[in-house]
Amino acid sequence: MSTATTFSAINPQTQQPLQGVFAEHSDQDVDLAITAAHEVAKAYRQTSPNIRSQLLQTIADCLEEDRQAIVERANLESALPLARLNGELSRTTAQLRLFADVVEGGLWQEAIFDTANSSREPLPKPDIRRQNIALGPVAVFGASNFPLAFSTAGGDTASALAAGCPVIVKGHPAHPGTSDIVAKCIAKALNIVNLPQAVFALLQGTTHELGQAVVTHPAIKAVGFTGSIHGGRALFDLAQRRQEPIPFYGELGASNPVFILSNRMKSGAKSLAEEYVMSMNMGCGQFCTKPAVVFVAKSTATDEFLAAVREGITAQQGQTMLTAGIRHNYLEQSELRAKQSGLTRTLSSAEQGVPSMLFETTSEKWRSNPQWQEEIFGPQSIVVLCEDDQDMLELSQNLAGSLTATIQAEPNDHPVAAQLLSELEEVAGRIVFNGWPTGVEVSYAMVHGGPYPASTMPASTSVGAEAIKRWLRPVAYQSVPEELLPQALKSTNPLNVRMSVDGK
Amino acid sequence: MSTATTFSAINPQTQQPLQGVFAEHSDQDVDLAITAAHEVAKAYRQTSPNIRSQLLQTIADCLEEDRQAIVERANLESALPLARLNGELSRTTAQLRLFADVVEGGLWQEAIFDTANSSREPLPKPDIRRQNIALGPVAVFGASNFPLAFSTAGGDTASALAAGCPVIVKGHPAHPGTSDIVAKCIAKALNIVNLPQAVFALLQGTTHELGQAVVTHPAIKAVGFTGSIHGGRALFDLAQRRQEPIPFYGELGASNPVFILSNRMKSGAKSLAEEYVMSMNMGCGQFCTKPAVVFVAKSTATDEFLAAVREGITAQQGQTMLTAGIRHNYLEQSELRAKQSGLTRTLSSAEQGVPSMLFETTSEKWRSNPQWQEEIFGPQSIVVLCEDDQDMLELSQNLAGSLTATIQAEPNDHPVAAQLLSELEEVAGRIVFNGWPTGVEVSYAMVHGGPYPASTMPASTSVGAEAIKRWLRPVAYQSVPEELLPQALKSTNPLNVRMSVDGK
Repeated sequence: MSTATTFSAINPQTQQPLQGVFAEHSDQDVDLAITAAHEVAKAYRQTSPNIRSQLLQTIADCLEEDRQAIVERANLESALPLARLNGELSRTTAQLRLFADVVEGGLWQEAIFDTANSSREPLPKPDIRRQNIALGPVAVFGASNFPLAFSTAGGDTASALAAGCPVIVKGHPAHPGTSDIVAKCIAKALNIVNLPQAVFALLQGTTHELGQAVVTHPAIKAVGFTGSIHGGRALFDLAQRRQEPIPFYGELGASNPVFILSNRMKSGAKSLAEEYVMSMNMGCGQFCTKPAVVFVAKSTATDEFLAAVREGITAQQGQTMLTAGIRHNYLEQSELRAKQSGLTRTLSSAEQGVPSMLFETTSEKWRSNPQWQEEIFGPQSIVVLCEDDQDMLELSQNLAGSLTATIQAEPNDHPVAAQLLSELEEVAGRIVFNGWPTGVEVSYAMVHGGPYPASTMPASTSVGAEAIKRWLRPVAYQSVPEELLPQALKSTNPLNVRMSVDGK
Repeated sequence: MSTATTFSAINPQTQQPLQGVFAEHSDQDVDLAITAAHEVAKAYRQTSPNIRSQLLQTIADCLEEDRQAIVERANLESALPLARLNGELSRTTAQLRLFADVVEGGLWQEAIFDTANSSREPLPKPDIRRQNIALGPVAVFGASNFPLAFSTAGGDTASALAAGCPVIVKGHPAHPGTSDIVAKCIAKALNIVNLPQAVFALLQGTTHELGQAVVTHPAIKAVGFTGSIHGGRALFDLAQRRQEPIPFYGELGASNPVFILSNRMKSGAKSLAEEYVMSMNMGCGQFCTKPAVVFVAKSTATDEFLAAVREGITAQQGQTMLTAGIRHNYLEQSELRAKQSGLTRTLSSAEQGVPSMLFETTSEKWRSNPQWQEEIFGPQSIVVLCEDDQDMLELSQNLAGSLTATIQAEPNDHPVAAQLLSELEEVAGRIVFNGWPTGVEVSYAMVHGGPYPASTMPASTSVGAEAIKRWLRPVAYQSVPEELLPQALKSTNPLNVRMSVDGK
């Protein structure tokens, strides 16, 4: 590929360039990679589920082989601790292996049969069989906050490769070295299982134009994105304004509200405070599931809770944020918020890195300041002090779309919790009970999505087995002879696919 | 509702106003209806599947009671024959009854369970259960060409009511009287099953502003639309530019290509010609599944086929189109196309109504005139004469997205048909074998959709049982106690919902 200019990664701890230079990929590079992906797309979507399962397992194996190099480079590029990155790599390989199981399991094909009935009146009923097929080449945007699990070989790439879509990754410029090592593992795996290299490509660069060129390329059929509402909405808009609009699966932010009901507060003020401080500071508050707002009701237990939270915040060691830009935004937005009337702030000292912050307000002030629902990315959260549980319930009716919503309740809180639950399921993709929203299980039932801006496509999830459906579309085959039917739809069922017949 | 102005239906056969005046609904009417729908949305989505099934069955019963009035009015407003409209009403009630079965069947909830594992390392695995819930109030646009099956109580309304979404129908101004009678049947059914009237509303009017106000109302959570690419794309764009973009399920047109392979042509030139002429003239060519382009290979059998098609076209009686506007567009666009070089035209006489038309061209000319892929709505179609089956196969690689694609083949055509099939499944939502695309089965396996412009959401279908999924989104419940879990997710399974546990 042509290399007009190059760039280096910046160590967020020192602000110095790290070793290694990376090509700033040009529009021509974009076109070459996507055209090559388009050319192999049909052959790739028609590979057997078993081959794609082998590919995913082999990518996981190759990542394990390079574990040390990947994790060390990611640590230099992101300032995230080695232990966390080791865990994230394990999660990444587990995701790849989950999708290997999913693609072999065959539920993703959603095979549905209608039985023919030649004697039906007024017209005979034809034999119709339906399956899902891959959309074609898709684009995946690496996220800064999960340089492994939501980046080059992350969940979007794993689910799209499982579905049968070639993948073009637009790497996040905060961790180009990590992306580069991971992309080489994928290239090696493609080679091992004898699939064309064009099934996967990594495009790198520091400009917005690079992402725009990827999203607007006519051969790209869908996009997966995790990031800010600002950048994500701009790319969403481009995707919708194409001559052929395409599905844009964007996860653009969430406030992840938590409601602590009165009896629960009474029974656990201290431990709730500890868990809250830990959850909001996890990964320097750079989790998309960070609890950015917690609703509590006035009581002596709540006073205890608040005192403990303040103490916990003050005791925080400053952590380094992912990039200088993210750090700048965090400090600027937090200072702006701190100047608004109706909020009090508790700060950690942050001799190094950025300070952790707690804002406190009342339900009355919260009602008149809807802008406080906007997420500030970083170790910061707001506690809203309500008059009572009823006041809290009312506030639950005016929340923006969110990835999660959490209820902390004892059995004697259940009457209120039941009402809260039926409000919160309209707001969030996942309801958490007596836990904290950080930590997203990679499993069959997981939903990581929700009403906008949690997701630009609220009917989808970007984590868990169902994420594969984002890259598929259904096709019906009417009266097609057995020998021409796709493998998954043959009456002999050679792939042993699960099917539904006449609605049963 | 306030009535600023009124309008009347126009009889397309006489161009005279029909009896009855209808309110031009204002922005205020729109807001009142949608706000009322929003207010009942939570209660309606939480009704039991059995109640919603009763509602759908009762709407079907009420339509049957008023069959004669509905069909007679629809005939006056659309000029479609009574026999066709009687069939369409039967299809409409069958659709309602299918969705009554679907909602009681429980597959639509897609219940998925993850089993907890408290001893998992490094972290315990939580109990997570997932179900689909209704999106909230949705808008449905009535289509001119199916005043019953794709209008007020049509497939979109039936599937959305089944899903648990209140429905706001923007009636098509070509058949306001039909819409009015049907809306009264729905109101009566809501009354019989004791559900609030606000679950359904019909908004009528002749301006574009009415539809725009509906699509941009913040309480509307999704839109179903069947119509032209011009009007549909404008509404799609509005839906995507909202502060909260919403799913817009638009079916905007299709050319429904048909490929007749050599041996098939040899064995059935005459009957294929008859079927083709019938299919393209069905409903005056106003079917979204009309075969607008047919690819054939040079042979003496093809000469016979073409002669028979020309003869069949010439013998057509002119039919009346749905509206003066549609008639005007059909004639204007056909005349423009007829003036382009490389096409020959055969016309019926059309003493009344509009003429039926056949265009013929060669594969060479077809390649250099991509604009001929654009559908002209009406009884018109193009035959493309290819050099041989190989030439036909090449043309199949450059087709726009379509609702259907058809292969006519004998067993000894299967080697070519197999290649064609793997091209066409990338183009269409439904592959038809040895049939014609007009006629869409309302069944479990049906797909009525496809790549843009066939659908603005290629992963969806607007006909058949799976159409219910357009109005749903998933929610995961993590560690929620049994007594607070939604009915469909309780371990005791009171609704007898089908579920998948740990991927099995």
